[in-house]
Amino acid sequence: MHTIRKYQAPDWPSVWPILHSTFLTGDTYSFDPESTEADIHKAWIELPAATFVACSDNGSILGTYFIKPNQPGLGAHVCNCGYVVTPEAQGQGIASSLCEHSQAEAVSMGFRSMQFNLVVSTNERAVRLWQKLGFSIVGQLTGAFRHQRLGFVDALVMFKQLTP
Amino acid sequence: MHTIRKYQAPDWPSVWPILHSTFLTGDTYSFDPESTEADIHKAWIELPAATFVACSDNGSILGTYFIKPNQPGLGAHVCNCGYVVTPEAQGQGIASSLCEHSQAEAVSMGFRSMQFNLVVSTNERAVRLWQKLGFSIVGQLTGAFRHQRLGFVDALVMFKQLTP
Repeated sequence: MHTIRKYQAPDWPSVWPILHSTFLTGDTYSFDPESTEADIHKAWIELPAATFVACSDNGSILGTYFIKPNQPGLGAHVCNCGYVVTPEAQGQGIASSLCEHSQAEAVSMGFRSMQFNLVVSTNERAVRLWQKLGFSIVGQLTGAFRHQRLGFVDALVMFKQLTP
Repeated sequence: MHTIRKYQAPDWPSVWPILHSTFLTGDTYSFDPESTEADIHKAWIELPAATFVACSDNGSILGTYFIKPNQPGLGAHVCNCGYVVTPEAQGQGIASSLCEHSQAEAVSMGFRSMQFNLVVSTNERAVRLWQKLGFSIVGQLTGAFRHQRLGFVDALVMFKQLTP
């Protein structure tokens, strides 16, 4: 069992190691693997419109996501989210739960659609999960991701309309 | 005849009115039509890696473009550019010239590809021009642009590989 709630400042010492170890592998997110704690705090906490965490029954943090407008002004009705789940909590449906939560949150914040700009094509588990949750592959970017093990691989643009 | 050179701070009083009037129409760029001069200075001059201007023989500014990485870290080998031409200089090949200049500049800066994230589908002249200059439509975003006259219209993701 887990619950999803708004991120609070005292969560950072638990959230940062999850983000740090995820980005360090350089196979799913474009953040520089050498990003500093301050860089990532800015990107995950300060710049987004909101950040959430998934917590286990004992309060430990299992995952996190942010939500923000994907573009300024006339593109700001489309949101963008990023999700990370701890390695220990993989396979328990946390990513799915975070994404569903973010979609409801997006609608309540007034967003009409959700867009992922750079889904790494070799991250097949993520691609399948987003498709299962209603996202379509609407674009393919040749060699747009510099995978730390595989070199340049394609990235996908995925999109879901949340309101008619 | 025109030349293209690096933007310099004294150009701003000429560049800002061009950007301002373009964004005010709300039919080509996602910048909020109500954006302040400081907002646009940040977006067009401060945040990009470089900004250029096209000048006529008498030194007046005919257009401008910026170039920047489209994503951080592992996506930073793909660049993004934005181009604006004064209404008076439309149809003289300035946009085409700026785009060709930006592609050469991108290669010399080490970028491998160029991506436009939000080409407004109803801006048919721009779509045709980018296609003529070697860009492909690699994605379609349903209703992703809130056009000031037409309401929600589709936006296109366009992409060109600059190096093999």
